Amino acid sequence: MGEEEHSRALSEEEVIRLVQSLAGESHDELVVGIGDDAAVLRLGGQAICVTTDLMLEGVHFDLAYMRPFEVGWRAMAANLSDLAAMGARPRWGLLTLGLTPPVERELVEELLAGVMELAGAYDLTLAGGDTVASPRLLISLCLLGAAEPRRPVLRRGAHPGDAVCVTGRLGEAAAGLAWLKRGGRRDDPTAVGAVERFLRPLPRVAAGRALAQSGRVHAMMDLSDGLASDLARLCQASQVGATVEERLLPIGDHTRAVARALDTSARDWALTGGEDFELLFTCAPQDVDLLAELVADQEPDLKVTRVGEIHPGRGVFLRGADGDMRDITLTGFDHFRRGEPA
Amino acid sequence: MGEEEHSRALSEEEVIRLVQSLAGESHDELVVGIGDDAAVLRLGGQAICVTTDLMLEGVHFDLAYMRPFEVGWRAMAANLSDLAAMGARPRWGLLTLGLTPPVERELVEELLAGVMELAGAYDLTLAGGDTVASPRLLISLCLLGAAEPRRPVLRRGAHPGDAVCVTGRLGEAAAGLAWLKRGGRRDDPTAVGAVERFLRPLPRVAAGRALAQSGRVHAMMDLSDGLASDLARLCQASQVGATVEERLLPIGDHTRAVARALDTSARDWALTGGEDFELLFTCAPQDVDLLAELVADQEPDLKVTRVGEIHPGRGVFLRGADGDMRDITLTGFDHFRRGEPA
Repeated sequence: MGEEEHSRALSEEEVIRLVQSLAGESHDELVVGIGDDAAVLRLGGQAICVTTDLMLEGVHFDLAYMRPFEVGWRAMAANLSDLAAMGARPRWGLLTLGLTPPVERELVEELLAGVMELAGAYDLTLAGGDTVASPRLLISLCLLGAAEPRRPVLRRGAHPGDAVCVTGRLGEAAAGLAWLKRGGRRDDPTAVGAVERFLRPLPRVAAGRALAQSGRVHAMMDLSDGLASDLARLCQASQVGATVEERLLPIGDHTRAVARALDTSARDWALTGGEDFELLFTCAPQDVDLLAELVADQEPDLKVTRVGEIHPGRGVFLRGADGDMRDITLTGFDHFRRGEPA
Repeated sequence: MGEEEHSRALSEEEVIRLVQSLAGESHDELVVGIGDDAAVLRLGGQAICVTTDLMLEGVHFDLAYMRPFEVGWRAMAANLSDLAAMGARPRWGLLTLGLTPPVERELVEELLAGVMELAGAYDLTLAGGDTVASPRLLISLCLLGAAEPRRPVLRRGAHPGDAVCVTGRLGEAAAGLAWLKRGGRRDDPTAVGAVERFLRPLPRVAAGRALAQSGRVHAMMDLSDGLASDLARLCQASQVGATVEERLLPIGDHTRAVARALDTSARDWALTGGEDFELLFTCAPQDVDLLAELVADQEPDLKVTRVGEIHPGRGVFLRGADGDMRDITLTGFDHFRRGEPA
């Protein structure tokens, strides 16, 4: 591809901004439009969160190392995670399947089993959808959730002085994916934890609702593209900057073990690895412990970790173990440019 | 493909039934689930219709003979048509775009212009969506509409003795598509009307709302896969049969002219041609004239034509000009089997 052609090509952020420029402004009935984890509509006095997420074979997943059940599970998890990030209660889903003829019954049954197992765990009802012929397997969901009793938590409420917190451990899904991509066995003792986490992520729906209902979370989103990218988006929406402390990053033993085995950096996975589907939020520093308890009440094994701080200005910085500061703004994944982590 | 393999492959109807078997039963809050044009949810005392429809390059459209503007327009039209079939008022949309890197600004801008021009005509607000990298251009919409003040009209209310009616002319989109596929010029005087109709269909939103609000329509759906297929689905949902009179089929001069030029049957297009996006409905025979007036009040050039009758039993039959009866049940398009019209 020539330099000139590249310069005309749009990045993912540019496409989103183009769509955003044409879309509805926030008003009485459209509380939040494009640019948050889900849109928020006001309907009959109730705030409804609506989100959609599409996964395509060869782009978002590979049947060489994933079973159809896991493809269905992850599609549902990604969409539920967007509702979790708003603190919404999942209610209804529309499912679109793109299938390659001839369509095997086993494939469809397993895919649906993965979708429905997770849907059932959160009382989500499948209400409709679409089926199309497609040269590659495709799965898309559109979920509706109720934001109740409080308004949903948005990306744009972070203040200077806020603590930056995450649930769970970072980089684990990236570790599992890297292991599978290198042809590693899924039941290998070194990697089984990370692989499981990649294949069957648990969206933080209960934690997200508890955090939203506390009224003490200023801004929230889910981690789908990695902390560096996602925190940059939260900061951009809130018109603030942030610094992350490398020594505070919650990196699990699973992730470190896989990183050692593959001779890679666990820290880079924690910063730029996608699809952990953990929650990223900001709050007053004195509320961190209380919020951690509220989350633990819902999900006993789920830790909340303070990883950094919001400050005035722009950009996301990493303070290394040696005290050095490094600009890590948007070093995650651009789906249209396949940018590698810096 | 071997016979054995074919026998294991699922048809589109079988996939829909599989999904349906796992999906929610109708209950207080889920008024209508999978199997109608849109799902109907009850939210804060209001009935909300939700629909989704995905179009994929090479399967549903071809950029060799369609401009990006028309791809966007038709995607919006197909989704609005589903809301029209319920008699719902369009409110919000979520847009998913799958784009092939490097992403050209012109392509995205034109595509969005087509989506937004039709959205604007119906006061629909774009509230969110998703963008993904995809080896083929892909566009999917999820629309929410309000069914007001009456309940939406479903497919399942047809009674024996009902008149079977359609809006507009049948087979015209199929004629336009056939012309373009054969390499015909889009501005050729013979075909320009049919081509225009294929490229920029007008969803019958105002007509659908007027019909629903009359309280006199027993069953309704939109014509997206052709009269034979779609009437069979309406009959199946209503547990009735139907007979269509060949001599009553509303076939326009455009369609006949293209059929003559391509030496094809205009009648077959009218019965099995997809994507006319007209409305198909049933009502008491004495209400046909009144309903035709209500539709004309909304869309002066839009005619309502009685094309047949609902009767007890099963199946859809065509009574030919010579009086012969022919079973035409489900002779339309199966997206997974590429079944040709009988």
